[in-house]
Amino acid sequence: MSRLSLNQITTRNWSLPEAVQGCVDAGVPAIGLWRDKVAETGLATAVKLVRDAGLAVSSLCRGGFLTAPGPEGLQAALAENLRALEEAAELGTDTLVMVVGGLPGAGSAHPSRDLAGARARVAELLGELAPHAGDFGVRLAIEPLHPMFCADRAVVSTLGQALDLAEQFPVEQVGVVVDSYHVWWDPRLAEQIARAGERIASYQVCDWTLPLPPDVLLGRGHVGDGHIDFRAMTDLVDAAGYTGWIEVEIFNQRIWDTPGEQTLRTVIERHRAHVETP
Amino acid sequence: MSRLSLNQITTRNWSLPEAVQGCVDAGVPAIGLWRDKVAETGLATAVKLVRDAGLAVSSLCRGGFLTAPGPEGLQAALAENLRALEEAAELGTDTLVMVVGGLPGAGSAHPSRDLAGARARVAELLGELAPHAGDFGVRLAIEPLHPMFCADRAVVSTLGQALDLAEQFPVEQVGVVVDSYHVWWDPRLAEQIARAGERIASYQVCDWTLPLPPDVLLGRGHVGDGHIDFRAMTDLVDAAGYTGWIEVEIFNQRIWDTPGEQTLRTVIERHRAHVETP
Repeated sequence: MSRLSLNQITTRNWSLPEAVQGCVDAGVPAIGLWRDKVAETGLATAVKLVRDAGLAVSSLCRGGFLTAPGPEGLQAALAENLRALEEAAELGTDTLVMVVGGLPGAGSAHPSRDLAGARARVAELLGELAPHAGDFGVRLAIEPLHPMFCADRAVVSTLGQALDLAEQFPVEQVGVVVDSYHVWWDPRLAEQIARAGERIASYQVCDWTLPLPPDVLLGRGHVGDGHIDFRAMTDLVDAAGYTGWIEVEIFNQRIWDTPGEQTLRTVIERHRAHVETP
Repeated sequence: MSRLSLNQITTRNWSLPEAVQGCVDAGVPAIGLWRDKVAETGLATAVKLVRDAGLAVSSLCRGGFLTAPGPEGLQAALAENLRALEEAAELGTDTLVMVVGGLPGAGSAHPSRDLAGARARVAELLGELAPHAGDFGVRLAIEPLHPMFCADRAVVSTLGQALDLAEQFPVEQVGVVVDSYHVWWDPRLAEQIARAGERIASYQVCDWTLPLPPDVLLGRGHVGDGHIDFRAMTDLVDAAGYTGWIEVEIFNQRIWDTPGEQTLRTVIERHRAHVETP
């Protein structure tokens, strides 16, 4: 399991110190961190914890949310993402996962319906942020989210669209995330992963399980519990030249309610069986 | 509202005779029928009812479900779709809406993970069915479903993918459905609608509303209640040369629990305000 990373949302009930210790105890070599967990522990303490533990930090989740309207929305998004880039650099990761944001006012009585406008806004703000990312030595990793999150979370919905954006910038500044849950259905997946090549900044895995729960955000399953062929997808990512971490990121209340040690054991077992096979 | 058609699932509590009368009373010139409602009334009676009412039948919902495994699965799917084609012809519509089916065993403990195989199966069965469709004078209208239904309902997830399939057959045999709910998020939507041209066999509308309900199948809203820009989408469909019916098809328990007359009034009002503007 030399490429396995635990994205700490998977063991959400663990604090950052607990997650770090859990990885060390289980022999997991890397961890993907979340900004709220880092803030809870304190940035300096978090930096020391992961360094002392000898863990690699595969990514920081997450920047983005670039679509708020007006000059205030723009300034707030830039300020927040600059903070996130700085934290990523401090934590020693080269990857800031970007969830780009949905339609302004999504879910309200009067949502914006200007999808093209929101997408243009994302491109605009990436243009502002990319040089800063370069300065910090951190890549903005655009994560296409499943189209069911298009209205409220991310107007970037396919890997092809993420690449159209990323390719406007130097490869060391802007990349993409391949998250199995979000992209598995895409009829153009094979060609777009091949196209992605060295733009792949992160490969995240979890499974598509049915039925979807009442809150569709929390419907992700352990690798092997659902409908995704992880061997085939990992082969595509490997063939594209990606040799980095494989991060297990699961949003699922039932899994969150399971003791962290047990969840991590399942993560490792499934990783060996379905992803990083010998 | 010269192009408005009521897809009868929108007034699900109405029987077919009630829906026909509702359309006549409200001046709606066309109706989209469902096979279960036709069967409930009896095919011959249904044919007479719509003919006597002077209603056009914009489509029959639905054929498809082509992905069941084995020779038995294939034979059953062919037989069922031939019956559907025959019913469509009897009812006087030239359009059979095709929901192609999901992964075999989806949602079970051991679902198929062979998405490419399921997609190949769809192509195979369309090849069997297309000449028969031609004989009946009915088009198989492939409906790409939202990617959140990829595992369990339709492995055809984008308009581009539907067109890749349809274009293997004569235009009078196989077309596509553009359903706003399923395709609105697609970053390639404008180019694919333009490409579709005379392949567009049906244009269906309803809105993407949030939050998604516990059963995501039933999350569709009245036009104007959600996040879709219907003026922009209708302009694209019109520009592609489509001059046919605009069918309002809504799956939503709250709307189904509303008296049919009231739902149809809302349908007409929203159609005038957002879709077929003067």
